[in-house]
Parts: sequence; structure tokens; C-alpha cells
Amino acid sequence: MAETENRDLEGAEESLDFETLHGQRIEEMNSLLEQRSMKKLQTVLEEADEFDVAEFLGKLPEQQMAMVFRLLDKEHAAEVFAELDSEQQEYIINTITDTELGGILDELYLDDTVDMMEELPANVVKRVMRIATPATRALINQYLKYPENSAGSIMTAEYIDLKKYMNVRESFARIRRIGADRETIYTCFVTSADRKLEGIVTVKDLILADEDAVIESIMDDNVIFCTTTDDQEDVSGMFSDYDLLAIPVVDREKRLVGIVTVDDVMDVMEQETTEDMEIMAAITPSDRPYIRTGVFEIWKNRIPWLLLLMVSATFTGMILTSFEDALAVQVVLTVFIPMLMDTGGNSGSQASVTVIRSLSLGDIEFSDLARVVWKEVRVAVLCGATLAVATFAKVMLVDHLLMGNASVTVMVAAVVCLTMFLTVLCAKVVGCVLPMLADKLHFDPAVMASPFITTIVDAISLLIYFTIAKALLGI
Amino acid sequence: MAETENRDLEGAEESLDFETLHGQRIEEMNSLLEQRSMKKLQTVLEEADEFDVAEFLGKLPEQQMAMVFRLLDKEHAAEVFAELDSEQQEYIINTITDTELGGILDELYLDDTVDMMEELPANVVKRVMRIATPATRALINQYLKYPENSAGSIMTAEYIDLKKYMNVRESFARIRRIGADRETIYTCFVTSADRKLEGIVTVKDLILADEDAVIESIMDDNVIFCTTTDDQEDVSGMFSDYDLLAIPVVDREKRLVGIVTVDDVMDVMEQETTEDMEIMAAITPSDRPYIRTGVFEIWKNRIPWLLLLMVSATFTGMILTSFEDALAVQVVLTVFIPMLMDTGGNSGSQASVTVIRSLSLGDIEFSDLARVVWKEVRVAVLCGATLAVATFAKVMLVDHLLMGNASVTVMVAAVVCLTMFLTVLCAKVVGCVLPMLADKLHFDPAVMASPFITTIVDAISLLIYFTIAKALLGI
Repeated sequence: MAETENRDLEGAEESLDFETLHGQRIEEMNSLLEQRSMKKLQTVLEEADEFDVAEFLGKLPEQQMAMVFRLLDKEHAAEVFAELDSEQQEYIINTITDTELGGILDELYLDDTVDMMEELPANVVKRVMRIATPATRALINQYLKYPENSAGSIMTAEYIDLKKYMNVRESFARIRRIGADRETIYTCFVTSADRKLEGIVTVKDLILADEDAVIESIMDDNVIFCTTTDDQEDVSGMFSDYDLLAIPVVDREKRLVGIVTVDDVMDVMEQETTEDMEIMAAITPSDRPYIRTGVFEIWKNRIPWLLLLMVSATFTGMILTSFEDALAVQVVLTVFIPMLMDTGGNSGSQASVTVIRSLSLGDIEFSDLARVVWKEVRVAVLCGATLAVATFAKVMLVDHLLMGNASVTVMVAAVVCLTMFLTVLCAKVVGCVLPMLADKLHFDPAVMASPFITTIVDAISLLIYFTIAKALLGI
Repeated sequence: MAETENRDLEGAEESLDFETLHGQRIEEMNSLLEQRSMKKLQTVLEEADEFDVAEFLGKLPEQQMAMVFRLLDKEHAAEVFAELDSEQQEYIINTITDTELGGILDELYLDDTVDMMEELPANVVKRVMRIATPATRALINQYLKYPENSAGSIMTAEYIDLKKYMNVRESFARIRRIGADRETIYTCFVTSADRKLEGIVTVKDLILADEDAVIESIMDDNVIFCTTTDDQEDVSGMFSDYDLLAIPVVDREKRLVGIVTVDDVMDVMEQETTEDMEIMAAITPSDRPYIRTGVFEIWKNRIPWLLLLMVSATFTGMILTSFEDALAVQVVLTVFIPMLMDTGGNSGSQASVTVIRSLSLGDIEFSDLARVVWKEVRVAVLCGATLAVATFAKVMLVDHLLMGNASVTVMVAAVVCLTMFLTVLCAKVVGCVLPMLADKLHFDPAVMASPFITTIVDAISLLIYFTIAKALLGI
């Protein structure tokens, strides 16, 4: 103990950078492995955090990884196992004996087991199910039936349940007896004889209460709970709104079936953010980290959207075709098309991303539509006016004077400015209305981000451009 | 107690939807207020969650809000106060007496006080500082000095510290004595006489340990910690990597100065996601929720980027100008410009958003550049080929046959297809390289998202287009 302390805390004093320390630990493991000092490596591994060990293992060749993994004791092995990627888990499962696998399954938290099962190929799942104890098997089966991304699919069954007639002393005795393998002990759930949820009591309440106090008198019966079918995103919203460490999950009969803990919710938040960003960039979301996703799968996630958007861009092309004659007369108009389209697209994306994020944070809802549109209209007038003035100055100074493009007349500059102003106005309105409509129709508003808005705004800006050009330039 | 239980749990049995329950509670408060049943309202408010009360208050006119706020008892008032917006906090501070304000300041957690102080106008800050106890004042001052978005700026000083020579019984006695007003009691921090961090011990460890066990023997001295100047985003990464409930924050001398708790980190995660999305949509991030941001401020956050991007789009215009003669000969080429530019932009954005998110999750780093580029090149070849074939089919079928556009020849279609393929290839490479370069140069990679990539890819796609057109069509 004393030696470890020296290593960690003196090392820390030299350099307070946690990342450096983390790197040093992994380096130490690597050098011990190179020197084949397996006994020393085993000691270092046992003292290290499961996350560090998992990272160390993840970078080893598969065979070596499986070998080092077997150096870990049963409990630590399960913790490290839960942190590995599904490919690595699969490899390890395929190289260890049934007894070893059984030991890991015993130690794994149920939600980690379920996560793993969802990723493994069918033949490996079969082997795991065969080796698991009947009780675990029944639970896994039950969990796998909950819809993806529901509270049921991320909950764990390892919680502490108390009865309301227990006193504090008895409760602590129960926590001591069953607490070691529970995912959280800090929120305890008070259930009736038929497993209905009656209240919650925190360990803080228990510690601060008198030893003889009865649970019923100290429990909070105004419980914040969710149901198995609730969306995981809504559940994670409850955590940040109410500062929870765990939330009870009940079934239709209001029986307590599991809990969701804050660490799982943080993973959900990361995953949902990634999903939102992918959808906003017109990519079908995937659960796998990018670096481990195959080229073909990435193509499959991206190409449908590119094709769809390309087809939509055809309308823009058709608009251009129908004005081909006008363009032939005034080729100079072509020069400003990219700038008008890009600025329109950017203006619209700004509004849509702001609205999508506000919707997802619950800051606005459909009933705020009028307020949002009114706000965006005023912002658009300010932005549009600024951009129009800047465009006029730029067109007259750069294109007309500096580059001496004689066909860029004041009238052409006026057409471009007016188009700019109206495009920004339309773009901002389209950008804020479409995500809110999508939300109202129970589509993911994130779909209405940059790519779609850009495609729509492109067509609008060209229509405005040529209508104004025809009117003002008489073509 | 029995009555509350009936309300909550029977109500829950009728409808398990938590949102409905939440709405009902707020409605109940509203109707009690309308009926002027202040005594009943007070009871309901006291039993309700601070979040619900804050939401109820937030929707009242200011005067009424301040009146209802004064119905709350001191402790609950502080909890509700922490949940209010800074404008509402300011209004309340301006309407209550010094004694009432002092009471709230006593009960507020230090990090909530600091959050509030950062938002309040200077004259209100002065009044708060005058009323706060000298100890609180010193702490607030110290905290306000930490850089924005650093661990120091989000930490709290209310933690439980233990000594390594204490035994478990003594530790529980200490937790009971000082725990009531600590933000978390579940992670206790073991410090030396000179306040240096020596280890941590969880309440779970304490509960499961023997009453006579000495802290030194059960504490974990392999502590995960951060320093006051660490970026809050890195700190939140540690929470999700290591499944923490609290992390100790140390100063340069490795003295424990505060802790960051998981509920604060969840707020940080939300805030950082919003910031990333705003930057990715070319908006200067702001801390305020959209619906409460003024039109002028929104304009200020959006217009510089629009102007910058518009100026960049000028290059695209200049490229078009230099090919104006070629365009005059073959006006039909104009028709495909929007489609080529949009598809290029979308392809590039897909790559850049994927890379930006992977960088921020720590899945990839600059050293993976070659691997990432190689992956994107292969994806681009697949996507480019698919899109080129689709384009060829579409151009020949729709433009040539269906719309009978005689100027759309097979050669023109070939030019468009080849441009499509090369544009997608360039777009994907630019899209993955630029965010990684930005990260390497310590810029926020999120800047290299859709708007910038689109502008760059637009120019590239036009250059490719006209070069190929000149070569193949001899213009």
C-alpha cells in the first residue's frame, strides 16, 4: 500500500497533468509486458483502474490481449471486460473456458451483460446463454425484449430494495449483506410486498437519521420514476433536471423492475449527442466508433442521404434550366450564384441548428412557433441588411472597380443585394419553421439541419434571384 | 405523509406518464394561486421538488413570482433559487430584505452562488457580497478568479474530508456532523495535515467495512483527480470514462481545494454539446438559452461568420468569373453547378462532422491522420462512384430525354459525372484533414464543420468542373 502511494502521489507532485499520469501507467504496463515480467505486470494490473487496463489491452494484438486478460482476478476481469469493445469481448469469449466465462458472467453487472449480448454474433450469444445461470439467463432474455434506446434496455436489476417497516439499523444490515454487488447503494428503493414502488430513501438520509427511525418516516414518497418503455433521451433529461444519481424504472403495473444509474445516463448523453450530430450532417447514426467502422458500412450510412439530397438539388438545376435564356444574356449573373446560395444556406443552418438544439433541451416547444418565427424575422432583417450592404460594397469595389468587370453595373449590384436580403429572410424562416414542424409530426428535428435546409434555400434563392433580375434588368 | 403518498402513487397508477404528473403538479399550484389559497399552496410547494417549483415560478409575472417565492421556507427557498434564471434571481434579490438574502446565501451551495454571481449585474453583486459572511465572501472571490470553463469555476468547496488515522465509526460520526450541507457525502476525501490529497474512500467502502477499520487501510490512494485550471470538458470526459460521482480538484501544490460533482458535469456536457453544435453551424456560442437571448445579441453571434463566409465565397465567384467565356459558350454547364456544389459540400460535411465528433470523444487523435485519410479515400471512392453513376443516369434520362435539352450531350454528362467523382473524393479528404489539423494547432475542430468545408469544397468543385469541361468539350 505504502509503495503504491508513493508512486501515485509523488508522481503527481512532479507533474499534475492527469493525462500524463495515465499515459505513464499504460507505458509501465507495456514495458513490463515487453520484459515478460508477468508477475510484476499482474500486480500493476490489479492496482490499476479497469479503464486504464482496458485501454492497455485494447492496443495489444488479440492473442496477447487474451493472454494478459487471463492474468486478472475474476472480479477485476469482469470490470475490465465490461470496458472492452464488442470485437475484443468476442475474441476473449472465444478463447476462454466455460468456467472462466461463467466466472466473468457472475461478476458482470446485468446491464453490461445485456449491452454485450446486443453486439455479439448469434453463435457467441448462444454459448453465453448456455453458460449463464438460469436466473441470469431469464433476466437477460427479459431485458433483450425492451425496445432499443428505451429505459428498459439500459436499466440494471442490481438495486437495493427496502421495506417501509424496516428501521435504519436493519436497512444498513441489509445494505451490508447485499450491497457489495449492487451497482448503486446510495439510492434505496422502498417496495411493497407485491413489488410496487412506495418511495425512495438515500444513504445520506439513512446516515443522518436516528438508528431506530422507521424507513416509512424518512423515505420520500414523491418519487421521480420512469417506465420501461420511456425513451432513454427523456430519462437522461430527468437526470439533469432533477440532479439524480439513480432513477427507478417501473412496469405497467407500477412494479419496480430495475434502475438506471447516472453513469449509464452519461453514456446515453454522449451517444445521443453523436446521433444528433450525425443526423444533422445527413448520416444514418451508428453505434460503433468511427475508427472501428468498416468502409462499406460508412458508405451505407452516408450514400442514401447524398443521393436523396442530390435528387433534391435537381430542382435547383431545373430552375436554372428554365432561366437558361436569361443567363445566356447576362452571364455575369452566374458569378454571384455560389455566394447567394452559400450565404442563404449558412443563414438557414444557423437558425435551424439553434432551434433543433433548443427543442432537444426543452427550451422551446411547438407552441412557441410564433415567438420563434418573429424572433428569427427580426434577426434576419438585421443580418440581411448587414449582408446586403456588405455585398453592395464588395460587388461595386471588387467586381466593378478592382476587377474592372464592365458587365457588373449598379443595377446588377442592386439585384444581388436585394436577393441577398430576401434570401436571408426566407432562409431564417425556413430554418426555424421546418425543425419545429418535424418535431410536431414526431420526426427527429435534427433531420432538418444544414443539408436539407441548404437544398431548400438554394432553390428559393435562385427563384428570388431570377425574378428580381427579370424585373430590374428587363431580361 | 399518507395523503401525499396517495396523491403521488395513485395518480401514478392511473397514468404512468411522468410528464403528465409533472404538468398536473404545476397546474395544481396555478389553480391554488388563482383561488388565493395561500396556505394550501405553501403546503404543496413545500412538498414539491425544487425543479417543479422553479418552473412554476418562472412562468409567473415577476411581482407574483417574488410574492410566492417568499412563501418558501429558507432551505427550500435556496434550492428553488438555484434553479431560477439569472433575470429572475436578480428580480428576487432586488425585492427581498438583507436578512432574507443572507438566509438564502447561507443555504446556497457555493458553486450555485458563484454561477449566480457570474451572471448578475455589478450593483447586485456588490449587495450580495456585502451581505455574505466574510468566509463565503472570501470563497466567492477565490472562485471568481478561476478561468471560465475551468474545473475551478465549476467546483464546490462543500465536501467531506477525513483523515487517514480515523476509523470507520469516527468517519461516520464526522459525516453525520457535517454531512447535511455537503453537496455529496458519497465520496469522502482523505487529506493530510497540510490539506494535501492522500486518497478517497466511498461511503459504500465505509458501510461494507468493519467499524474499527482505519481509513488508511480501506482508502483508495490511486486517486483520479483534476487541477483547478483543467478544462471542464476534459473533466467531464473523466467522469464518463471512470464512472465517477465526484472528482477532487487540487491546486498547484496538490492541496485539495474543491470537488466537482456529477450533476454539475451533466450540465457541462449539455452546455459543451450546445457550444459544439453552435460552432459547427458558424455561430458564436452563447451561454443564454435561445428563447431568452435578445435579437441584437443573436445578430452579433451570427453576422461575423456570415460575413466571413460570404467573403470566402467570393473566391468561388472569382473562379466563375474567370470561366465566364467558357460559360457563355456552354450555358448548359451552369445548370449542374448547384448539384455539384451541394453534393460536394454534403460529402465533405459528413466526413468533417464524423471526424470532429470522434476527436471530441477521444476516439481518434492527430496520429491517426493517415488511417483516417485512407478510410475516407476508400469511402469517397465508393460514394463517388455511386453518385457518378446516379448522376449519369439522371442527366441522360431526365435532362437529355425527358426534358429534351439538346445541349445536354453524352460528353456533357461525362464531364458532370467525372467532376462528381473527383469532387466527392476531394471533399471527403478536405473534410477529414481540416478538423484534425485544427485540433493539432489547438483550434476548436468544430470550426471546420459544414459552413467552412462547403465554402472550400465549392471552389474546388468549380475548378475541377471547368478544367474537365475545357479538356473534354474543348471550350
